[in-house]
Amino acid sequence: MKQDLDRLMAERGLDALVVVGQMRGNPALSYMLNGAHVLGGRVIKIRGEVPAFVHSPIEREEAVASGLVLVNVGQYDYPSILRETCSEMAAEVELYRRIFANLGVRGKVGFYGMADPGRSWLLLNALSDQVEGIEIGAEFAQTVIDQARATKDAAEAERIRQVGRRTAAVVGETIEYLQSHAVKEHALVQSDGTPLTIGRVHQEIGRFLSAQGLEAPEGTIFAIGRDAAVPHNHGNPADLLRLGQTIVFDIYPRELGGYFFDMTRTFCLGYAPPEAEKLYQDVYDCLEHVSAAYAVGTELKLYQRMACQFFEGRGHPTIGSDSRTENGYVHGLSHGIGLAIHEEPSSSDVPTNTTIIRPGHIFTCEPGLYYPERGLGVRVEDVIWIDPEGRVEILTDFPKELVVKVSA
Amino acid sequence: MKQDLDRLMAERGLDALVVVGQMRGNPALSYMLNGAHVLGGRVIKIRGEVPAFVHSPIEREEAVASGLVLVNVGQYDYPSILRETCSEMAAEVELYRRIFANLGVRGKVGFYGMADPGRSWLLLNALSDQVEGIEIGAEFAQTVIDQARATKDAAEAERIRQVGRRTAAVVGETIEYLQSHAVKEHALVQSDGTPLTIGRVHQEIGRFLSAQGLEAPEGTIFAIGRDAAVPHNHGNPADLLRLGQTIVFDIYPRELGGYFFDMTRTFCLGYAPPEAEKLYQDVYDCLEHVSAAYAVGTELKLYQRMACQFFEGRGHPTIGSDSRTENGYVHGLSHGIGLAIHEEPSSSDVPTNTTIIRPGHIFTCEPGLYYPERGLGVRVEDVIWIDPEGRVEILTDFPKELVVKVSA
Repeated sequence: MKQDLDRLMAERGLDALVVVGQMRGNPALSYMLNGAHVLGGRVIKIRGEVPAFVHSPIEREEAVASGLVLVNVGQYDYPSILRETCSEMAAEVELYRRIFANLGVRGKVGFYGMADPGRSWLLLNALSDQVEGIEIGAEFAQTVIDQARATKDAAEAERIRQVGRRTAAVVGETIEYLQSHAVKEHALVQSDGTPLTIGRVHQEIGRFLSAQGLEAPEGTIFAIGRDAAVPHNHGNPADLLRLGQTIVFDIYPRELGGYFFDMTRTFCLGYAPPEAEKLYQDVYDCLEHVSAAYAVGTELKLYQRMACQFFEGRGHPTIGSDSRTENGYVHGLSHGIGLAIHEEPSSSDVPTNTTIIRPGHIFTCEPGLYYPERGLGVRVEDVIWIDPEGRVEILTDFPKELVVKVSA
Repeated sequence: MKQDLDRLMAERGLDALVVVGQMRGNPALSYMLNGAHVLGGRVIKIRGEVPAFVHSPIEREEAVASGLVLVNVGQYDYPSILRETCSEMAAEVELYRRIFANLGVRGKVGFYGMADPGRSWLLLNALSDQVEGIEIGAEFAQTVIDQARATKDAAEAERIRQVGRRTAAVVGETIEYLQSHAVKEHALVQSDGTPLTIGRVHQEIGRFLSAQGLEAPEGTIFAIGRDAAVPHNHGNPADLLRLGQTIVFDIYPRELGGYFFDMTRTFCLGYAPPEAEKLYQDVYDCLEHVSAAYAVGTELKLYQRMACQFFEGRGHPTIGSDSRTENGYVHGLSHGIGLAIHEEPSSSDVPTNTTIIRPGHIFTCEPGLYYPERGLGVRVEDVIWIDPEGRVEILTDFPKELVVKVSA
């Protein structure tokens, strides 16, 4: 949570942090700016103090929504710095020197956000060499910002729950839309007799999202048959909606510029063949098994192991025993959701992941089984919230029915 | 253009380049991946060779659309590297060592894309220290990728032109939508008699964009009165559509995940007061004056100076004489558009900007005048394309009428 930032900074000996970049694709900056609707800028936080937002002069009005101390970068007169230094890098270093002096930044400073890696390397080397009293306090992974974001406060959890409700509404509307079609030659057809396509369904999902005030900057997966058996295949637009094939519908929209949700359902139109039923039951049982086991204070990666063991017990290959398998259970069980669709906590079963389930964690639980050569893929995904008292709550409120009835 | 990459690399002595990160907000990666619909990855290009896309195993199908040499990162077995090294940074260095060895990368390597700055600093330091035969060839600004992207090939120009047509259609539909309303107490009202609001218009613009297959990841400016006089104010949702006030409508959407357009019109509903007419004429004349002057082989920043001189000749303050002014002409004249809404070329009047207008450049021309205390803002913006023969073409095809008639 944001309130943990000072403690996290103290633990790492950081005196200040700087978060930079454009807003788009930059959840660390978006987090620090409390969703203010700006193109970008620099947030600078001295430990124990309210952060300052060093913003562009022409964004001074939108900057107010950040609730931070506002510093108009115009006051440093960058154009004349550039004229004096005749070098963009020297000018940037001088700009930082002035900002740091003005705000009283000194000591160990961490740098976060999003920037070109080569540029960052040059800039941080130059700041370290040329700005007195500043030491670079870089972090490679699980940074203070990642750690703060990994647990959600009550307001964030409520926003995510609301996005979840609207996401479930979109899934419901999509299923009703499918059911409004007639069947011809074992596939859905439109009122003019032409086949309904996956591409057309994607368009309609876009409309449902928009009507719910949601956007899907990372796309949506609605894939059938073989495509559904490759976890990140979004679906072939030309494919038809054939009865009896597994459809994986994985939808991960967000509020406009805000918090994401993530939900997956798998279904067959009309009927399910026995082998799809068997896979579905295994995935469903795995989800039930793992969801019932989550407990505060345990390592999140244990549940990845639990899912692997469960599936192996049912005779499926898993990445637990072969990290390169493309059949069976082939991905991670959980990722945190928030201002990014993938964030902490992680269920990755590696020695460096020591994440313990804590109050405020919001993460997916998404077991799946995939057999591309058999044209079969099943994934079912709920979102888990660990509430302030450490209780496990499932934020996804939507039925898990394999067969979607159609008017045959 | 992409075909310039090898030459640009040779000019900088780069033997290879690496472009990393997630796709969202990462135009350099999107550019190298030719719009393939993946979450992210690493593109590695040795000078003179087709780039390789080192992709995630679960994105192997979507990766094909990149047209690059595909390298499934699964083959390096990162989980076991992590188990051996027990450090995420050491594992990342070892992963790069294996990828570089496998692809034959050596010598001076540039790093681009989007990543956490502190992480990049640590990683590039470690690669430089620990991977033999590799030297970091970082660039601070105007990188090889920026330079390649700054000029568009015929296919890119055509796509941007098409986005421009659809953007103009949205502007036309929005004006028709406004005109479909009645007037009551000098403001537009809806059919139920309640006032039309800026917020409602924003919603409608969203619908028009969606119907045109466009998205607006950076938002849309539709602001009236005082808000229109602050360049990046998006408009107060509660404001009413009052007659006789300047409305700045600045719309910068893109194809889904692709190329942006950028267009601004300013208008008044019903009638324009004389002071708005005067400002509008000055902005209109400036745009005509500058647009007629563009010539290949001249510095783009000269036109920023030309706009300042023009406006000062009409009695307005400008950032040319006072870089901190918030009245008069307060921003840059031009920015390139492409996979980012702001990219090269720049019209910034600083010594480090030596950009010469060249065939393939596509940039905005957007003079504006702002008087926040008088509640007046005017900006008009066209997009300029320098065609392969060096001719100047305006890609924006939409009238410039100050007054929008309404049924009074």
